[in-house]
Amino acid sequence: MEINKKVSENLIAVKKKSPLIHHLTNYVTVNDCANIVLAIGASPVMADDIKEVEEMVGIASALVINIGTLNERTIESMLLAGKKAKNLGIPVILDPVGVGATGLRTRTAEKIIKEVKPDILRGNMSEIKVLSGLNVAIKGVDSVADAENGIEIAKKLAKEWGCIIAITGKVDIVSDGDTVYSIENGHRMLSDVTGTGCMTTSLVGVYCGANSDYLTATVAGIASMGLAGEMAYQSLSPVEGIGTFRARLFDAIYNLTPESLASGGQIFCE
Amino acid sequence: MEINKKVSENLIAVKKKSPLIHHLTNYVTVNDCANIVLAIGASPVMADDIKEVEEMVGIASALVINIGTLNERTIESMLLAGKKAKNLGIPVILDPVGVGATGLRTRTAEKIIKEVKPDILRGNMSEIKVLSGLNVAIKGVDSVADAENGIEIAKKLAKEWGCIIAITGKVDIVSDGDTVYSIENGHRMLSDVTGTGCMTTSLVGVYCGANSDYLTATVAGIASMGLAGEMAYQSLSPVEGIGTFRARLFDAIYNLTPESLASGGQIFCE
Amino acid sequence: MEINKKVSENLIAVKKKSPLIHHLTNYVTVNDCANIVLAIGASPVMADDIKEVEEMVGIASALVINIGTLNERTIESMLLAGKKAKNLGIPVILDPVGVGATGLRTRTAEKIIKEVKPDILRGNMSEIKVLSGLNVAIKGVDSVADAENGIEIAKKLAKEWGCIIAITGKVDIVSDGDTVYSIENGHRMLSDVTGTGCMTTSLVGVYCGANSDYLTATVAGIASMGLAGEMAYQSLSPVEGIGTFRARLFDAIYNLTPESLASGGQIFCE
Repeated sequence: MEINKKVSENLIAVKKKSPLIHHLTNYVTVNDCANIVLAIGASPVMADDIKEVEEMVGIASALVINIGTLNERTIESMLLAGKKAKNLGIPVILDPVGVGATGLRTRTAEKIIKEVKPDILRGNMSEIKVLSGLNVAIKGVDSVADAENGIEIAKKLAKEWGCIIAITGKVDIVSDGDTVYSIENGHRMLSDVTGTGCMTTSLVGVYCGANSDYLTATVAGIASMGLAGEMAYQSLSPVEGIGTFRARLFDAIYNLTPESLASGGQIFCE
Repeated sequence: MEINKKVSENLIAVKKKSPLIHHLTNYVTVNDCANIVLAIGASPVMADDIKEVEEMVGIASALVINIGTLNERTIESMLLAGKKAKNLGIPVILDPVGVGATGLRTRTAEKIIKEVKPDILRGNMSEIKVLSGLNVAIKGVDSVADAENGIEIAKKLAKEWGCIIAITGKVDIVSDGDTVYSIENGHRMLSDVTGTGCMTTSLVGVYCGANSDYLTATVAGIASMGLAGEMAYQSLSPVEGIGTFRARLFDAIYNLTPESLASGGQIFCE
Repeated sequence: MEINKKVSENLIAVKKKSPLIHHLTNYVTVNDCANIVLAIGASPVMADDIKEVEEMVGIASALVINIGTLNERTIESMLLAGKKAKNLGIPVILDPVGVGATGLRTRTAEKIIKEVKPDILRGNMSEIKVLSGLNVAIKGVDSVADAENGIEIAKKLAKEWGCIIAITGKVDIVSDGDTVYSIENGHRMLSDVTGTGCMTTSLVGVYCGANSDYLTATVAGIASMGLAGEMAYQSLSPVEGIGTFRARLFDAIYNLTPESLASGGQIFCE
């Protein structure tokens, strides 16, 4: 339970520091990302013009790059902001949404990994497999690949790229190349709402923006979202569905305490 | 009641196939469109860069084009994606949001109709009248034109353009040029929430992505949204308003069953 | 209580006229802005392409310019639309989101103020101080500056720029340079949800689009949002948080009546 105590302390640090998290993200779930960052007690900022991203990174505690609706203009901003963050020692979290679905996405994610060297990469199994060079079937931005060998892939890629790899799915895997944690929180309904992956990445950004141990911080972000999914589901009546569930996710993150995270986190060291 | 049985079977096909629906849509309601597609059991994808839209269309089962916040860059992507979809035999659904409000919108919608030849066109009476060349007063993106002669206009345009015309309003009209259906589901409060028109178009895209009879599929999409509006309204307490109503719309679509659609659909063959 | 009677009459005019409010705004909170405009009984339109903004302004009753996610393309559209609105005598409301955080934001806000001459400028104390040339610490788009001297700053800037200045915070200050109103509605939780500032600006746009006395209209917009925050908070159970609160904000604005605004508005003439 050492890790549960640590993620709980990570949440205390978030509440205390209230880090500013800069996002270069997609226009589908950007509002959700902003609200989830606020819900946990941090501050979001979204800015993507090439003329201001570096300056905005300069006042932020973490940078989230999400390629969900990338375009030529924002790709350039992502690279600029990412490099600036690395120069300043600010953690960069990459969410390679839909990578593998198109060549543009694959090339862009690979370029960001190579040129920016993100500190944390969070994706589903399909996305991570594509980036790893393994064969995989892709259906849009959703994962259809099996979760087998997740631990091995996470460790291998983490070592290869010198970053933390987080593979989210039924069971979430997080590794820095040496240590591996699995997280068994969450609810199936989380995959019925758009943006829950993006929001998880934003929460990882928040925890990394307030804590120096990125491995623990990544686990904390993923466990927080999983726990919120469980709480949101438990609150539903039979006539309610994803509309109400979605509102309750924000409620759950808003009301998440260090104690509830410590006691509810199903986190295991592999 | 033959049509009710058919729309009900259409919903079964949606749940079974879970089609991927590609959207080139506006940034105002894009999150709502993604969530409504997920709520009914399909998968959304939104991508608008010219370098990836054709590839994304290649893995999709339907393409929704919505001109709500069009710009020079995305207009080009809409045309490219639309032509690719037609080449692949994938249904294209056009939502000409606010057409008539500006010359740019009118020219763009006309260009898409001419060059892409969408399979289904869904708009309100003002929008459809503008495209038909009839005189009409426009107030932004909302319809102020009367619904008279809707059946005649729908039939005429459907024949002229070789596509399905759906005119939504107090009573919805759908025609392929020969057969005409009217749908009397819905609730006035649907017009008090942004994006209910866009979401209806996305649902039409979902049904067309899983069924080959686009006339029935279009009726199914419109009836589903109307029925959800009724269910959402009925669930409200006196102190609740459009905030809660909006969440309940997603709940209602999430819980919509082939049985409830068959029994609740107020669909009439004219 | 004269002002309470006037804001109440302003709401009656909104319901009667249902003005069309054109927005050039950010993609983070654009959906919220559209829904809040609908909730109070007006019509929103969002369009930002340079080829249509002037035409869209031509059919609108007010123009809201919000620089939250500005870029080169939309800055040009903001200037064009703003000048067109002024030529037509339509009120222009500027929300200088995050000004001071980057040079691009500061330069853009200053350019809009100089070249467009907005009728109303609404920001938090940090933003207003930056524009006034006073020294201030900025943390992203949130205000950290103290609220001291708000009345003096509002009066000074209002006179200097010939516009209405609204500084929102724990206590809101509105001045046209001569008269000053303070508004003590609102709830702390409003700052835990993204877009409440943007929505306040949109509501100011709505009131100004339906009333010729912009000072009263600005007070009405701000008091309406504050009152909605109070009502939304009061409706919450202990397990609910910002997800539910956010939905209830729209409910509260939807159900706001001239009577409840008149009796609940905590508005004081300084």
